[in-house]
Amino acid sequence: MRRSIVNDVDDLIPEALEGLALTHPSMLTLDTEHRFLTRAEPARDKVGLVSGGGSGHEPLHAGFVGTGMLDVAVAGAVFASPTALQVLAATKAADAGRGVVQIVKNYTGDVLNFRIAGEISGDDAIDTEIVLVDDDVATDSGDDGPGRRGTAATVIVEKVCGAAAEEGASLAEVAAIGRRAAASARTMSLALAAGTHPGDDRPQFDLGDDEVELGVGIHGERAAKRASFTDANGLTDLLLEPLLAELDLSRGDEVVAIVNGLGSTYPLELQLVARALHHRLGDAGVEISRWLVGSYVTSLDMHGVSITLMPLDDELRRLWDAPVRTPALTW
Amino acid sequence: MRRSIVNDVDDLIPEALEGLALTHPSMLTLDTEHRFLTRAEPARDKVGLVSGGGSGHEPLHAGFVGTGMLDVAVAGAVFASPTALQVLAATKAADAGRGVVQIVKNYTGDVLNFRIAGEISGDDAIDTEIVLVDDDVATDSGDDGPGRRGTAATVIVEKVCGAAAEEGASLAEVAAIGRRAAASARTMSLALAAGTHPGDDRPQFDLGDDEVELGVGIHGERAAKRASFTDANGLTDLLLEPLLAELDLSRGDEVVAIVNGLGSTYPLELQLVARALHHRLGDAGVEISRWLVGSYVTSLDMHGVSITLMPLDDELRRLWDAPVRTPALTW
Repeated sequence: MRRSIVNDVDDLIPEALEGLALTHPSMLTLDTEHRFLTRAEPARDKVGLVSGGGSGHEPLHAGFVGTGMLDVAVAGAVFASPTALQVLAATKAADAGRGVVQIVKNYTGDVLNFRIAGEISGDDAIDTEIVLVDDDVATDSGDDGPGRRGTAATVIVEKVCGAAAEEGASLAEVAAIGRRAAASARTMSLALAAGTHPGDDRPQFDLGDDEVELGVGIHGERAAKRASFTDANGLTDLLLEPLLAELDLSRGDEVVAIVNGLGSTYPLELQLVARALHHRLGDAGVEISRWLVGSYVTSLDMHGVSITLMPLDDELRRLWDAPVRTPALTW
Repeated sequence: MRRSIVNDVDDLIPEALEGLALTHPSMLTLDTEHRFLTRAEPARDKVGLVSGGGSGHEPLHAGFVGTGMLDVAVAGAVFASPTALQVLAATKAADAGRGVVQIVKNYTGDVLNFRIAGEISGDDAIDTEIVLVDDDVATDSGDDGPGRRGTAATVIVEKVCGAAAEEGASLAEVAAIGRRAAASARTMSLALAAGTHPGDDRPQFDLGDDEVELGVGIHGERAAKRASFTDANGLTDLLLEPLLAELDLSRGDEVVAIVNGLGSTYPLELQLVARALHHRLGDAGVEISRWLVGSYVTSLDMHGVSITLMPLDDELRRLWDAPVRTPALTW
């Protein structure tokens, strides 16, 4: 069983948001009513950037509020979308007069509530554009269902949109670069053990000792099938195979890679996956010129890892490299 | 049971170090023979700073190699000291002609091997000073035993020594500021569940559902007694009580606080502890003016948290605030 460090579970998100704001007073300001965090010093004369979604994925999204990235992050309950009213208030807070890009992971509730908020905010003469993040190849069914889920590529989309907005790009330009990043980034995830909801004592699902959940979602959505447990190199191959099938990389290509821990995966484990990824792509003549290795888009304390790859060109590389200063990402 | 993302367990540390270096090529260079990481661009004309110890505490120590912090971090096996020969090679690599400060967590093996290396390096005309970190109040027995263990205050000592060295301070001055920080910083830790060694399938120890291990060590050392499991506010009080008894804080004092996850503690949990800490110290008239909240000094995937407090004066605050650029800490 797993126990949680929590007070009343019903107070978890407001208390956690308060804790985040208290410990970053120069960076973050909390709106307690609508549960969103803004930059402590709001940006002026730039396109606003708002993102958000269910909690339980920390440091996403509030950890990415700051110079060069988001203006506002709005938080729902654990694994539940913020309401349209929350998103509306957050969108208004993000507006500095040049419109707002809403970065939304592709889940039905999030998409619905951000869309409603975008439409209503038009009544206040705020122009909005939605950038949908849908990078998870495990859900690429090709049919006309809900489409691929949004996962760790959100960090890339928030980063490049943030840099473009900081440079003074227009609403249409920021949305376009975000859509271009989202269209070219892909992620695959696996879990060795599920996460446990705060206050529960059992994980979301159980796996056999010889199984891994290949294609797990960040809300603990199970995959269509299990794969056999194997070593770090083999697990990396399990993730890489469907990514390579979708990405159509060629010898000489350059990519950014995120090796993302899903919660309780420790740094030594992530370093082994990153090492294997370097060697596998190196063998294919693909250079990983930019890296993030750490737990950036989590699923409570899930034990697992995801790999995100996105091909880089001059523009995307420049936007990725631009300065950023947020609680979870600074360079 | 917990399974690990690992290849051959005997290759874990060299492979993980390779992974860390590969993913930070502009920041870190690996010495594969002696298993230490140096800054990719070595600093000149400053006091060198070397630290290290057993692995399994990542991002400590290699995550703190870079401008404004360490020059070299040397890695032993999981929870085992690097050898004296490793430390000697690391100390030589850290020397830029003005001597080397060795920052050592107070464990018998580490102290012995750093001391031997310091003595031998004198043969090469390298002046060394050891700064011992011994912040763990759980082991403050007051007798003439091995003394308090070194835990999360190591991050503070490495940070302020790094800033002083970068400013051009002498060997004696850097050592003095490190000793002053170490003498005034205290840490207390608790675990809800022990960590699991890579390749093992059972945690280091088991706890009852109503128990927490109060005073746990970062190698899974058990405490003299258990405490009763309680909520986030109550767990914070369990940590704070022995800290306040030792630190003699007064109304109007200012401190830096580290709320440190021990491995699989997720951000929401740490944010609740930070929130409770803010309110408790606020009630006592003590201001936490600087914060680190995250998993910086871990014990594999242990589920637990530590609180470190150190009173700040003008000099320590200035050194804490000085720019730093490392894989795990950048501002």
